[in-house]
Amino acid sequence: MEMEQQFKNVTVDKAANIYFDGKVTSRSVWLPNGSKITLGIMLPGEYEFGTDSLEVMDILSGDLKVLLPGETLWREISGRGTFTVPARSSFKLEVRSVTDYCCSYGSGA
Amino acid sequence: MEMEQQFKNVTVDKAANIYFDGKVTSRSVWLPNGSKITLGIMLPGEYEFGTDSLEVMDILSGDLKVLLPGETLWREISGRGTFTVPARSSFKLEVRSVTDYCCSYGSGA
Repeated sequence: MEMEQQFKNVTVDKAANIYFDGKVTSRSVWLPNGSKITLGIMLPGEYEFGTDSLEVMDILSGDLKVLLPGETLWREISGRGTFTVPARSSFKLEVRSVTDYCCSYGSGA
Repeated sequence: MEMEQQFKNVTVDKAANIYFDGKVTSRSVWLPNGSKITLGIMLPGEYEFGTDSLEVMDILSGDLKVLLPGETLWREISGRGTFTVPARSSFKLEVRSVTDYCCSYGSGA
């Protein structure tokens, strides 16, 4: 998935998902196998997100720090990077420059 | 097109188009007929855009003013609205709240 530049034969929601007064936005995309991803943008700011299912965040470009659940050390991402967040947890982000991401979702189990 | 809630059997670019330090961002989507649309977000601010081809801007939600080429009166859009910009021209926007849009492109002729 990480090397794909385009997603083909997908369904895209017309309306955006809008969070934090538009500082975090995304579009929902359904892949041919029925799984959902979101393609999103985060502007600089501090955010905390909760997860229902497992989330794999593929950072396509940006400059940010992430604090994963159960961790005390912030991970730094400059440019590209990936991190995984367990289901039913939360994570914190400090976004320092415009960040482009692709989020994939696992089962909630 | 305006009433569709989803676009099916399309191709989506993974990476975002990023303008104005991320205050305007979009994803490019290719419809089954090969035509391109962009699904985008504009945060509050003042912008001027140039067009190569004709553009039909379908505002899905937002609060903004638009000054079309050759006009002296700003058009107000609150909520939904549509405007068309000729090819090889420019238009100005004053965006007052987070604006979700779908832009379609005509031929450059």
